[in-house]
Amino acid sequence: MNFSEKLQAAWDSSGAQLCVGLDPIIERMPAAIAKEPRPVLAFNKHVIDIVGDLVCAFKPQHAHHAAVGAEEDLAETIAYIHDRWPKVVVILDAKRGDIGSTAEMYAREAFDRYDADAVTVNPYLGDEGVLPFLDRPDRAGVILCRTSNPGSALVQSVGPDGDPIYLMVARRAEQVWNKLGNVMLVVGGTYTEDLARVRTAAPTLPFLVPGIGEQGGSARDALRVGRRADGLGLAVSASRSVLYAGSENQIRAAAEAVFHDLAD
Amino acid sequence: MNFSEKLQAAWDSSGAQLCVGLDPIIERMPAAIAKEPRPVLAFNKHVIDIVGDLVCAFKPQHAHHAAVGAEEDLAETIAYIHDRWPKVVVILDAKRGDIGSTAEMYAREAFDRYDADAVTVNPYLGDEGVLPFLDRPDRAGVILCRTSNPGSALVQSVGPDGDPIYLMVARRAEQVWNKLGNVMLVVGGTYTEDLARVRTAAPTLPFLVPGIGEQGGSARDALRVGRRADGLGLAVSASRSVLYAGSENQIRAAAEAVFHDLAD
Repeated sequence: MNFSEKLQAAWDSSGAQLCVGLDPIIERMPAAIAKEPRPVLAFNKHVIDIVGDLVCAFKPQHAHHAAVGAEEDLAETIAYIHDRWPKVVVILDAKRGDIGSTAEMYAREAFDRYDADAVTVNPYLGDEGVLPFLDRPDRAGVILCRTSNPGSALVQSVGPDGDPIYLMVARRAEQVWNKLGNVMLVVGGTYTEDLARVRTAAPTLPFLVPGIGEQGGSARDALRVGRRADGLGLAVSASRSVLYAGSENQIRAAAEAVFHDLAD
Repeated sequence: MNFSEKLQAAWDSSGAQLCVGLDPIIERMPAAIAKEPRPVLAFNKHVIDIVGDLVCAFKPQHAHHAAVGAEEDLAETIAYIHDRWPKVVVILDAKRGDIGSTAEMYAREAFDRYDADAVTVNPYLGDEGVLPFLDRPDRAGVILCRTSNPGSALVQSVGPDGDPIYLMVARRAEQVWNKLGNVMLVVGGTYTEDLARVRTAAPTLPFLVPGIGEQGGSARDALRVGRRADGLGLAVSASRSVLYAGSENQIRAAAEAVFHDLAD
């Protein structure tokens, strides 16, 4: 199955365009889980069990595993998702950006070592930084376009009036990089007008939309302005507002709230 | 000792502004090393032993370790450098780029888990992507400015005539980000004119200069146009042209050739 078919199947089976990020922070986990021998893996599985039927994608964050030497927990987390929810797409959030054989090593890391379906990629280095992640039709590169943070304008908004870098990235992704149908864009949910402009520049690409919840973006607005003409095209990502909502019931309720916003 | 003192001590003790990258590729190692139980660690130590007295910095590449699950080898490699050549600066080449607490996790990865003195950082996300790596006066962020690959112009050269993004990044690094004296810039050695322009925009910052050797840049030209008024300010990085030169003697000779270019 190629990547675009996988993503379509994930939308079809979940019934919503919801992604849940997995950013395990030991200090914020329930005490009982934090005390387990492998707290990162235990917490990830706990969340995956609770919300897996609501999501089209999980987005494990490399940094939160790498900081504590939990790469093996990351690998087992992704294997657990594939096993428990085989239709859910796994986006490794690692924001890789390098060239040539180094970029190929990062593609091997994401796709072979971790068996992720997709990996986030930084476009600052240009084509050579992006293309090594797009060689495999069943795996995707999710290119940073317009990120959700206030300082994103420093680089991303540079350019001739009305044509900032993030729109150039969006057009190049749509027109040049997407030969195998395996390109997505990261477009923050915090800047609704920009999200609408990126949708116009890249009418067919799926978007990963972070910035919902703790960062202040609205899932409902992201859906309204970000979806494609066919009504699909999004993986709206909530992370800490779900992960650290509290009890099992509270985690479920937090995910369902975003799910319902996206099902409207 | 703060970072700028560390780097000064490394220049003083090595007598040159040479950095050797550690990009371990099992298929290219000598057969005897490739067969060892931990070939990545064995190869790194082999190179470190041969060239350590010639360099001001080693630059281990995260990707080449992560692709094969050799994070522990990376940690032990860095510990080995600190032990064997305590004045040599370790720059973890990981090109991290994320925001907020995720960036803090990457800083913990580089500085606490791996004990690197510096880590390369991608500026596409703006201030929030850079500042979390600059909190510690004894550790540095090495910010991508003008990279060595042909496609780097796609994003990095956008901007008003004569004022592309890479110069804006250079100025911001010099004037805003360098409060603790712990900012370096990545400026490729393949575009000598651009290197000269970055030096003008950032007269005091040290530069990590890749692109020497296999990528075609000249160490002599990099030194000529890239150094500061005090004659220092560089870590000119050679990787595969040294690592895969062949026998011990050939590795030594390859490193000495760049060393002598830089000592002129």
